[in-house]
Order: sequence, then structure tokens, then C-alpha cells
Amino acid sequence: MTDAAEVDAKAIFLTEYPKGAPQAEHFSMRDVDRPTPGEGELLLRTVWMSVDPYMRGRMRPDVKSYIPPFSLDAPLDGGAVSEVVESNSPNFAPGDYAVGFAGGWKTLHTAPAEAMTKVDPSLAPLSAYLGVLGMPGMTAWAGLTQILEPREGETLFVSGAAGAVGSLVCQLGKRRGMHVVGSAGSAEKCAWLEAEGGCDVAINYKDHAGPAAFTKALAAAAPKGVDCYFENVGGDHLEAALNVINLRGRMALCGMISVYNATEPPAGPPNLVNMIGRGVMAKGFIVSNYLHLTSEFLAEVGPPLAAGEIKFRESVYEGLDKAPEAFAGLFKGENFGKAVVRVGPDRL
Amino acid sequence: MTDAAEVDAKAIFLTEYPKGAPQAEHFSMRDVDRPTPGEGELLLRTVWMSVDPYMRGRMRPDVKSYIPPFSLDAPLDGGAVSEVVESNSPNFAPGDYAVGFAGGWKTLHTAPAEAMTKVDPSLAPLSAYLGVLGMPGMTAWAGLTQILEPREGETLFVSGAAGAVGSLVCQLGKRRGMHVVGSAGSAEKCAWLEAEGGCDVAINYKDHAGPAAFTKALAAAAPKGVDCYFENVGGDHLEAALNVINLRGRMALCGMISVYNATEPPAGPPNLVNMIGRGVMAKGFIVSNYLHLTSEFLAEVGPPLAAGEIKFRESVYEGLDKAPEAFAGLFKGENFGKAVVRVGPDRL
Repeated sequence: MTDAAEVDAKAIFLTEYPKGAPQAEHFSMRDVDRPTPGEGELLLRTVWMSVDPYMRGRMRPDVKSYIPPFSLDAPLDGGAVSEVVESNSPNFAPGDYAVGFAGGWKTLHTAPAEAMTKVDPSLAPLSAYLGVLGMPGMTAWAGLTQILEPREGETLFVSGAAGAVGSLVCQLGKRRGMHVVGSAGSAEKCAWLEAEGGCDVAINYKDHAGPAAFTKALAAAAPKGVDCYFENVGGDHLEAALNVINLRGRMALCGMISVYNATEPPAGPPNLVNMIGRGVMAKGFIVSNYLHLTSEFLAEVGPPLAAGEIKFRESVYEGLDKAPEAFAGLFKGENFGKAVVRVGPDRL
Repeated sequence: MTDAAEVDAKAIFLTEYPKGAPQAEHFSMRDVDRPTPGEGELLLRTVWMSVDPYMRGRMRPDVKSYIPPFSLDAPLDGGAVSEVVESNSPNFAPGDYAVGFAGGWKTLHTAPAEAMTKVDPSLAPLSAYLGVLGMPGMTAWAGLTQILEPREGETLFVSGAAGAVGSLVCQLGKRRGMHVVGSAGSAEKCAWLEAEGGCDVAINYKDHAGPAAFTKALAAAAPKGVDCYFENVGGDHLEAALNVINLRGRMALCGMISVYNATEPPAGPPNLVNMIGRGVMAKGFIVSNYLHLTSEFLAEVGPPLAAGEIKFRESVYEGLDKAPEAFAGLFKGENFGKAVVRVGPDRL
């Protein structure tokens, strides 16, 4: 059980909108007032927080999106697993663990009880609720099942396949009887993808630089062409996918991490016209459009995860002060699987 | 009634795959053997033939598409309205008119009876069966109704709005209660679009060169943003549409005429990433995927067309020898509405 008084109230502020790659200097960890839960609210101690590529989009103040941009000189927020330390709700008791979208980037936070979802530490490690059982897992499941309409025997290509989202897409595709091709940025990641991560073939894109070379590698790995493309990267990956996409191909646009830090308008794919003659559909999405399907997601992923049939990897950063570094690492290919920050111990 | 013996059998051959803009030198009109209809076939005299932008895609031998490329040193084909001169089918009699996909680029042709659709000269001029009542009309209807899911009060943006496809998209959108914005390349076209062509606002893109200027013009014409984009042009038009597209926007990718003659890979839109945060769907299509819905199309378009409520324009070229010029004109913005070639008189 937590003694809340032992936890210093700190939060990480965004001090400047990054131009280009985010750096430590764009962030500042500051002492903040201890939050006080109101009626129906909880006081929570953040245990694990998530850093995710979508947060980069919230650091652009001028872009229309489903999610509002972060404010400058205010605490950031994001997904976190937290321990309940005080509860003004009959549905939570101190010592419960819960996941929600507001606890990130801080040590203590309040939240309306209905904004938090209780989690079961016996089903999976707490941090998994930020990854394979959390928002990235739901993202993977939603893109695959709700956009790509996968069919047994089809070929699925997943870029960023060793990431939090991509690695589950690959495994879910494989479980549905697809030929799965993934791309990642190191031999170690590719070896894991082929051994455990659901890929029939994993391509180290660093060995095939440029759209022509990557197209050739992808065509070799997907001899029947690509029916479904799960897009996390953009750039050469998208161009190559458009080169080998089949008639009636589908593309779930989940992320384009290669362009998130662009300071000049990035080059778009020159071959978008292929979508016309091949009748290709592409749909961008963010996970919050699919949250009403959470129980379906958990029903598909929970049991095989608990049985050890679904694998996941994590890159763990220790301490709230490391959160900016963890976030910046997302854009350097430094992380393997889900990047999480341990803000505090499981139990004090 | 036709005396077939009066018609010289001629056809236009593709002699070279164009690199860049198609030119007269890529084509050759030649005498051919008189075709002889087999069992169940018709001998037909081409009256009107169609030139369409999609034909440019068939002049690239190395591109995967629903439609095979044209062969070199063989007669081209394409949509045409023809008069039946001999019939080996109980369903057609000499003097009937019929539309099909094989009569273009030649004066005489045969076809299996089941590949031809009888047309009613009293409902509309014969050439309209190549335009508003034909493949371009069906393309417009299918893209709007089957991909864009238009809703009353939404904003529809149509590029290439004065073309055979675009001008019907605009009018069908307007009839469904949408705010319709069209783009075209002359003041004359824009005036017609606003007066008769279904546009609330028509933008002369030549007055707003470059993506920034065109985005500004489009944003002004679509103050609530764009919900549905019907893409015929590509390039700056697509980039601008992606800048102003709304959350849950839909894009029907019908054509990208601005890139069809590209000799270098064209620049793709730098802002494709907007599709993600805004949950935008884009689907490429060609009309042959939707032919099973032809009766629905005719039910929606036929009656208002016969009543004069739907308007259309044509650019008429006289004589089969003018077909290459008509085709080349598609890429110069020279045509207003549907480009058709009168291959022979309605009746001999």
C-alpha cells in the first residue's frame, strides 16, 4: 500500500515545440502542487508511463487532428498504469491498479474514476497494459481487423514490425493464416521477428536503402504481392508497398514515423497513382475511433497472451526524468518493442 | 440502314508507347481486313468513339492494373457507340445502336452480342452513351455513391470538374444537397460550372498556382472544410485537398491526369500523414469494378437527364483520323466536357 506522502509531485512540461527531432531541451521536469481528488475522483501514483510516436503530432500546434495539441508550459499527458492511493469512488480501492490516458509524464495525478480502467496484474505484467494489452495493442488489432479485412492465405506487410504496434500486427496476422512480412532496422530485431514475432520474412531495411532496393527486397519476401499493408513508417516503405500492392489491396495508415520530425515538407510517394488501377483502399486511423471494440480486442488477444502464445518486447527506461530520452528514442530506432518508463515501483 | 460495303475498314494502331505526352506520331491509321462476324456476333459500324484518360495507363506496358496494356502494332480499342450492320444474334437487328468497349479506334468491328448494350437514341444523343450515360457517367456515380458516402450538407470538392466525369459528380453532389466546389482550368469552364454544372464555387486553378495558393483558394471556397474529395487530377490538387480535408474525410481516387505523362517520378503529396490524424479514407477505383450497379446508375441519372435537369458538355472531333488529336487533347486541358470522335454519320 502506498503512502502518498512519500511521493514527490513532479511533472514533465513541454517548454518548446520541437522543430525536427525532439530533444531533452524541449522538456523540463518540475515540482508541481500535490493534486487533490474531487468528488468521484481518484488520486493515483503513476507506476509505468508510455511514450508513443503519436505524441509527436501533439507537439505541432497548427495541425488539425482528432487530438488537440499539447500546451506549452503545462504538464504533458499520456497513457499510464497507476496505483490508486485515494479513492472517492466505490469502484476503486487504494492498492488497485488502473490504466488511463492522463497519468503519463507525472508522478501523481487525479482522474475521474470512470476515466480509469482497472487492470489485472495476474494476467500480464503491469507495463503490458501500455503495450500489447493497451493502446498500441488495440491499435494493432483495430487496424488489422477493422481496416485491412485480412483473409487467410493473403500476404500482410508490416513496417515498423518490431515496434509495439507492429509486432502484434504480425502475430495476429500469422494467427489468421497470412504470409507475414515485416520490416525493422536491425538484424537483432529481424531475427526476433522471424523466431517469435510472427514474421515469415523480416527485412532489415537498412540493408536495402532507397525505394528501388527496398521494393526489390519486399517483392522477394512477398512473391505473391502484398494484399494488406500496415503502415507505421512512411517514406520508402510506403512507396515500396505501393509498388507491390495487389489488386484490391488495403492499407491501414497507422503512423509515418519517418516524417514526424520533418522540418521541410517530406517527399510523398510518387506512385500513389497505383491505387487507382489496382483499386487500392487506404485508411488513416487513430485508436480512439475504435475504443468501443475494446472487449473484442481483449477477447482475441488476452487468452493467447496469458498462454504465452503472443510475445512482446519492451524497452524500459528507469525514472520519470528519463521520459524525454525515452520519447526521443522512438525516432532513432533505439527501442525494441514497446518503450515504457518506470516512474515508480509497483508497490511502495 | 447501312450498306456496310460503303464503309472502308480502317483502324488506328499504337506504333510506340509514348514517353511523356502522347503525340500524333505514336499512332497510325491503317487499312485493315473487313471483319466478319462469327456465330452469335454482330458486325458493327462505329459512329462515335470515346477517348478517355485511363487509356494513357494502357500505354504503359510494365504497370500492374486491372486492365491489360495495349499491344504495339495492333488496333487500339475503347468505348464506342456503333450501328449494327449484320446480326447473328436474335437480340439485335441491323439499324440498332449499341454501346460497348471494343469499337473505338476503328470504323468497323465485330463483337459478341452479349458484349454490346442496345441504346435508345430517343433518350439522349448517341454520343451521350459515351459520356454522361456511359462509362464516365457510371464512373462519376460509382465514385460518389459507392466510395464517398455523401451526406446532405457536407462539402464535396471535385477536381477536373469540367470534365466528363467531374461535371456529373458535381451535379449529383448538388442534387444530394452538398456544398460543391469544383476546379477547372479556364474562366469559361468555371462560369459554366457555377451556372449549370452543379458547383457552388468553381476555382480556376490557373489563377492559384502552387499548392499553397491553391490550398488558400480551396479553403475559402470550402469554409467548413472538405468532407468528400473526388480526385481526377493529382499533384497540387491532392495536396490542397489533404490540407483542408475534414475529420472522417473520404477521397475517391478516380484519376490523376497531372501525372499520367510524367517522365520522371512525380512528387507525391508531402502531407499524406494528414490522413492518419483525421481518420481519412482514400480508395482508388476503376469503373469496371462497379458495372454490376449499372441499373442503379441509370435509374438515378437517366430520368433527370431526359428531363434536362442534368447538363453535359462535349468536345467533338470529326473523323477517325482525329482520334489521336482528341486523345492528346485530354492532357492539354483543351476539352470541355466529354471528348468524343465522330467516326461516321448516325445513319449512312
